[in-house]
Amino acid sequence: MLKDFVKAAKPEEEQITKEVKQAREKLAVYQMKIKEAKLPVMVIFEGWGSAGKGSVIGRVIRSIDPRFFTVKTMGDPSPQDMRYPFLYRYMKEIPEAGKFVFFDTFWMEEVTGQKMSGEIDEKTYARRVRSINTTERSLTDNGYLVMKFFFHISKKTQKKRLQALLDDKSTAWRVDENDILENKEYKKYLETYDRYLEDTNRSAAPWYIIDASDKKWAELQVLRFLNQGIDTALKNHSLAVPILQNTFRLNKIPLLSEISLADKTISDEEYRKELDRLQKKLRDLHNELYLKKIPVIIAYEGWDAAGKGGNIKRITAALDPRGYEVQPIASPEPHEKARHFLWRFWTRLPKDGHIAIFDRTWYGRVMVERLEGFCSENDWQRAYNEINQFEKELAEWGAVIIKFWVQIDNETQLARFTDRQNTPEKQWKITDEDWRNREKWPQYEQAVDEMLQKTNTSFAPWYILESNDKKYARIKALRIVVEALKKAVEKK
Amino acid sequence: MLKDFVKAAKPEEEQITKEVKQAREKLAVYQMKIKEAKLPVMVIFEGWGSAGKGSVIGRVIRSIDPRFFTVKTMGDPSPQDMRYPFLYRYMKEIPEAGKFVFFDTFWMEEVTGQKMSGEIDEKTYARRVRSINTTERSLTDNGYLVMKFFFHISKKTQKKRLQALLDDKSTAWRVDENDILENKEYKKYLETYDRYLEDTNRSAAPWYIIDASDKKWAELQVLRFLNQGIDTALKNHSLAVPILQNTFRLNKIPLLSEISLADKTISDEEYRKELDRLQKKLRDLHNELYLKKIPVIIAYEGWDAAGKGGNIKRITAALDPRGYEVQPIASPEPHEKARHFLWRFWTRLPKDGHIAIFDRTWYGRVMVERLEGFCSENDWQRAYNEINQFEKELAEWGAVIIKFWVQIDNETQLARFTDRQNTPEKQWKITDEDWRNREKWPQYEQAVDEMLQKTNTSFAPWYILESNDKKYARIKALRIVVEALKKAVEKK
Repeated sequence: MLKDFVKAAKPEEEQITKEVKQAREKLAVYQMKIKEAKLPVMVIFEGWGSAGKGSVIGRVIRSIDPRFFTVKTMGDPSPQDMRYPFLYRYMKEIPEAGKFVFFDTFWMEEVTGQKMSGEIDEKTYARRVRSINTTERSLTDNGYLVMKFFFHISKKTQKKRLQALLDDKSTAWRVDENDILENKEYKKYLETYDRYLEDTNRSAAPWYIIDASDKKWAELQVLRFLNQGIDTALKNHSLAVPILQNTFRLNKIPLLSEISLADKTISDEEYRKELDRLQKKLRDLHNELYLKKIPVIIAYEGWDAAGKGGNIKRITAALDPRGYEVQPIASPEPHEKARHFLWRFWTRLPKDGHIAIFDRTWYGRVMVERLEGFCSENDWQRAYNEINQFEKELAEWGAVIIKFWVQIDNETQLARFTDRQNTPEKQWKITDEDWRNREKWPQYEQAVDEMLQKTNTSFAPWYILESNDKKYARIKALRIVVEALKKAVEKK
Repeated sequence: MLKDFVKAAKPEEEQITKEVKQAREKLAVYQMKIKEAKLPVMVIFEGWGSAGKGSVIGRVIRSIDPRFFTVKTMGDPSPQDMRYPFLYRYMKEIPEAGKFVFFDTFWMEEVTGQKMSGEIDEKTYARRVRSINTTERSLTDNGYLVMKFFFHISKKTQKKRLQALLDDKSTAWRVDENDILENKEYKKYLETYDRYLEDTNRSAAPWYIIDASDKKWAELQVLRFLNQGIDTALKNHSLAVPILQNTFRLNKIPLLSEISLADKTISDEEYRKELDRLQKKLRDLHNELYLKKIPVIIAYEGWDAAGKGGNIKRITAALDPRGYEVQPIASPEPHEKARHFLWRFWTRLPKDGHIAIFDRTWYGRVMVERLEGFCSENDWQRAYNEINQFEKELAEWGAVIIKFWVQIDNETQLARFTDRQNTPEKQWKITDEDWRNREKWPQYEQAVDEMLQKTNTSFAPWYILESNDKKYARIKALRIVVEALKKAVEKK
């Protein structure tokens, strides 16, 4: 793309000044429409060192009220960042509805830099590109406008600018070794950038190459594309997007109605013995996980009153409290609802070596949000694939992912609800909403079946916990966790 | 305290088991009451290495539903943490209303560790102790329950436990050099711990020394104190607290009614010239700030339509967007309202070398929250001192703090409101609430006068920007900022 890039005809100086002024006014008007339409806007600046990204960002934001934007400089990942998936530090910073975030370099800088230095091999590079493409797609699918600018200058221009910076004592510190190297090996970098731009130039979030040989002209190009992009996004904002096919290899899993519950029981004696034995094992494994820096994600979904809480407790009882966190997931807070539906899960991931247990999860999208109409049909239909992608990211990061569906039958739920209602200490556990949800059992059952079928991947499998007998379910959960962790520890 | 510590009589084994069971049940009941009363609970575990803090935390949390607590292991500050004030990483983690946070070591560990290693001198130590005491007090004043446990064991017991850990291959990694050193120089550490406990043993958040020679017994002691503490806090939760006297040296500042506005004007020519000159200076200073790692906080308060936004823009126009952030402050979101009122400002602080510009600030507490009844009288009366303390922390961290009150008269506001109402592009800037607030001008004026008088400290002074002529106010703001930054840069 860079190699074939044909510069747009640069207008006269005077014309540029005039057009910049108009474009700024347009952007000032758009900021209000963006707010009204609750459109989240990511503006990503990448490009050569000294191409003037920072100063153009500085000019562009002058048209926008500070309430509506922030600027983020991503830089290199810190040691803390390195303990999370590659995408983590980027996903944390995505804008909320109605606001701009301007990024001074983003994932391109990290990936191409690591490719050039040999820190990542061809295979990892390909995986990064895939992660980026699917994430950008998922962002735009969820209503984000993603604008990507590459600031392009020639080797000669870059050299001149670097020299000018170095010659001035007050700016010399801005030039680092990387900039020098980039200029020296301009051609090699050009190849890498060009390839990356090709690899990530998708229709949902295409690249705009900016002729950055002149700052004011660069600003005008950015403003033109940005205004165009916003205009299109505002027009399309409420349109549904074509749903990507879910092409993950899925394992078979029974329908809920095929699961037999009555025979899944355990004697008290056996329970005690197994609980003790498995918790001891789990305790030791937790130590090893920590030392080997393996992250673990345990996701619990299930019927109300199925016994999730008690089940989780039997797991955590064996864990060092410094190495795990239980994440209870309720309905999203306003600042969470204003972002991509997976944002609040991205920001709750465990560090490597740590365990996160989710009490309810991102699957709310295809259960409660689907059935209560909190998102559109297009949203939840799309979500199976988005969730599989998300879990794939976690798996490739090295996480062990265990997903539990805690299953009971309709009569057992009724018995437990009634018991809660009649026992003063338990009354807080039962609300009118629980009763209302219960009435929708058939719809939920259908949604759960669809969810289990469509998201039972090899890297993030579902396990059914038959929980009419809670003790049986607890032992089964412990066994599955111990087994999965043993395998992960041995492999690493 | 440690040296004079008399162990409580340890009950028989059987009695402990019985009491632990009862205490756990009590705690399980309390968790619901805490939720109802919206009580935030901080439980801080400090003490000797290998005293069993982690395992007692693990036992105590078994009685509590994961929805109601988290466990935080603080560890050493990361390089990222070091770019913020000492208190920052702790304040970030305070619990929200109705929830527990259990801390596996807190600020004591950091301060005593640094004191022992000589990283901080006597003066810094004294400052840390003061920061901690005022912060703990402010937390309890704002309705937090702060429980502090010190886990005490003898030199002999510690040695035995460390040896046992070292002897087992699977646990040896848990023992680090510090633990060994602590045991070797037990007496010196004892002196330091003892002194710190004395220094921070205040009635609002007293220390509880736990005889940790036996784990189960330690758990029982913790549970007893914790239940007691919760019981007292629940009883006192809605009681007002005695207000600490505001003992900061305050500089004189005029009443709003004494400020003359009509004569504060500037010609267009002078404005252009000065704007240019000052923005150039500011640009250079921003570079130096960055290099010298000086954090800057600029706080804007003022009447609606006084021209805060335009004023801020003239500052930011001179800044590199990678080095500053404008923080627009609206009414708090639910997760913000659920915490100490300063929490959302702590978490928005700039890194060192960066500038944060607050468009409205923590002074909302003594203006809108006071006048609209969003907090109690005790709350806002207390807040002057709390705010002075907060700003003092920032100043001692090395921050430049500049506070602007943007002043206009009543007629000018009316003219600007009317103009906004009548100009389609400006209508979004004016709401019914603005008109309602305008009716309360006299009450606001009184509150602002009181605020300016009570918080005009030498380390965080107020500056009046006379803004009937917006251009005059912009130039004045730029001059003040340039002056303050120049002084800070020269000093460092």
